[in-house]
Amino acid sequence: MNESWNRLRTAMEQEGHDALLITDPKHVYYLTSFACDPHERFLGLVIQRDAEPTLIVPALDADKAASASSVKNIVTHTDTDNPYDVLKPCLPAGLNQLAFEKNHISVARFEALAAALDAKRYADAGPILQELRVIKSPEEVERLLEAIRVIEDVLMEGVSRVRPGMTELDVVAELEYLMKKKGAERPSFDTMVLAGERAALPHGVPGNRVIREGELLLFDLGVYVNGYASDITRTFAVGEVSEESRRIYDTVLAANEAAIAAVKPGVTFGSLDRTARQVIEDRGYGAYFTHRLGHGLGLDVHEYPSVHGRNEDVLKPGMVFTIEPGVYVPNVAGVRIEDDVIVTEDGVRVLTSYPKELTVIGG
Amino acid sequence: MNESWNRLRTAMEQEGHDALLITDPKHVYYLTSFACDPHERFLGLVIQRDAEPTLIVPALDADKAASASSVKNIVTHTDTDNPYDVLKPCLPAGLNQLAFEKNHISVARFEALAAALDAKRYADAGPILQELRVIKSPEEVERLLEAIRVIEDVLMEGVSRVRPGMTELDVVAELEYLMKKKGAERPSFDTMVLAGERAALPHGVPGNRVIREGELLLFDLGVYVNGYASDITRTFAVGEVSEESRRIYDTVLAANEAAIAAVKPGVTFGSLDRTARQVIEDRGYGAYFTHRLGHGLGLDVHEYPSVHGRNEDVLKPGMVFTIEPGVYVPNVAGVRIEDDVIVTEDGVRVLTSYPKELTVIGG
Repeated sequence: MNESWNRLRTAMEQEGHDALLITDPKHVYYLTSFACDPHERFLGLVIQRDAEPTLIVPALDADKAASASSVKNIVTHTDTDNPYDVLKPCLPAGLNQLAFEKNHISVARFEALAAALDAKRYADAGPILQELRVIKSPEEVERLLEAIRVIEDVLMEGVSRVRPGMTELDVVAELEYLMKKKGAERPSFDTMVLAGERAALPHGVPGNRVIREGELLLFDLGVYVNGYASDITRTFAVGEVSEESRRIYDTVLAANEAAIAAVKPGVTFGSLDRTARQVIEDRGYGAYFTHRLGHGLGLDVHEYPSVHGRNEDVLKPGMVFTIEPGVYVPNVAGVRIEDDVIVTEDGVRVLTSYPKELTVIGG
Repeated sequence: MNESWNRLRTAMEQEGHDALLITDPKHVYYLTSFACDPHERFLGLVIQRDAEPTLIVPALDADKAASASSVKNIVTHTDTDNPYDVLKPCLPAGLNQLAFEKNHISVARFEALAAALDAKRYADAGPILQELRVIKSPEEVERLLEAIRVIEDVLMEGVSRVRPGMTELDVVAELEYLMKKKGAERPSFDTMVLAGERAALPHGVPGNRVIREGELLLFDLGVYVNGYASDITRTFAVGEVSEESRRIYDTVLAANEAAIAAVKPGVTFGSLDRTARQVIEDRGYGAYFTHRLGHGLGLDVHEYPSVHGRNEDVLKPGMVFTIEPGVYVPNVAGVRIEDDVIVTEDGVRVLTSYPKELTVIGG
């Protein structure tokens, strides 16, 4: 991650930060490869412009940090230490501007921290981190691909077990069992399996509804593997489905494919959303595509950028996000088809590879 | 929860808070019965000393709030609103002191909030909430019992499926599958299944280690049901185990029982810890009981109070916590036996009921 560190230090200089204090465990992992859940204990990474970084970890995690972290300067604190007193000597004296994660540090923690330190000014490290994270390195893409491989395996095997008569929750339990068995750290969000007209509910949650022959079944699921998230949606036919269900499915698939084909550096996120929406409007279902086209994907399952019609930010190579148009016709059916994609130098690479033609299951 | 509201308003008066802003979804649920995961959106409950409370929810959740919440005055905001502008008219003008959850609100959110509001002073609502939560109401005890019932069912059935040759992770996957099937919202922490000498590691995590005949197998697991957590640990014998394993087991069981017998109003948490520790020291394993005796249990799986040797706070009726002594002999075995208990008017009620004699499994 040397490239990230260089970009980080350049940004610090531009923003006038003498030091950064990184506290979100995700960002510590991102910059040092040390994955840690410190619970309520303090975990911090101090980055200065012209000095070696320092990692401050709970004493319990010292060994793990020493073996995993690319930052070799490690300071520990115990449960009887004030961690901010331990932090203080890791920062230069007479600090002008310390940037910390305003989105991650609570008011209570900031008050304790500011009482122990003596920085003249405090600034937000959030924008720099967002800027860094949005462009994925080749190592990050490998991790995303691994998280996608696991979830596609889970989906393939899970789908093969579906039979009419099972409930939505039965299928969720099967899927989450498979995630665990196949090496996922955890689901990246609440696994969704929705049958028939229930997939058209704005906030459908899997329940004891029985899956029946002749209806569509929507799966939306993902996992974290090595700290990176996958997210995929596929909709299947349980036996033969109605003409209208097929028409809805074909509409969503066409929108998914049109949006993917439009991905390349220089176009806006808004234009992708409009491309998909136009396909759906042209087929008469415009009123039923009720959400944004997608969202960034990486260390978080939902992260910057948001792929919606008013986002005029421009696509750059290395950005990873979802494309997930949907059509939800009340009391009829809901269909969503979601892929994960990366912007390349001259277009797009689709990271998900699960087949998209309407597949009959449950037999 | 009328009793909670009365205690809350009395405490507000004592602390000089004109209004409370509750933002932790757990606390909104605690006070209103409305369970909501607003993700990054704003959720807030405004409580004044002499006026009706107001609940501010994302527009998406308005219907759910209206049907679930005991607070009937509901205000909504959409994704294009500044939620703090929506909040402002819900607070009295010329507010002297507004208490908010300093542990829950990030610095970024507080800055946005303070920019929109005009309170003269801000204070911390945390202590009042902690004080309220530590004494469980009869309804809360019912919910805890339900979460315990589910996890004991899961453990009973999960244990019956264990066979030598399975890995720790195989068993974890079975247990988490059963949790889902039996109605848990989610595990209350990472389910732990550790075999033989691995249960003596300070930070053991279930892995691909195969479970073998002749060793102990430690299970530590819990679930959330209706927002309340359970937490139980039992250690089993896979086939016949060594004399030493049995001796360790008996020691831990004796410590568990002695600490439970010591629970009553008026004694200190420290004394409970010392009681258990003395039993273990007397049998020569004092050096191997390396953690506190227990922790509070309720809306969080780990909450106030901490049951450790230096906590001289006094037990009161209605407090719920775990009692979980353990002995971890490196390269030999680890044993922990954990129950959930409530302090009654004249002693203790043990909420967990899973048998504690050493049970042979895997056959």
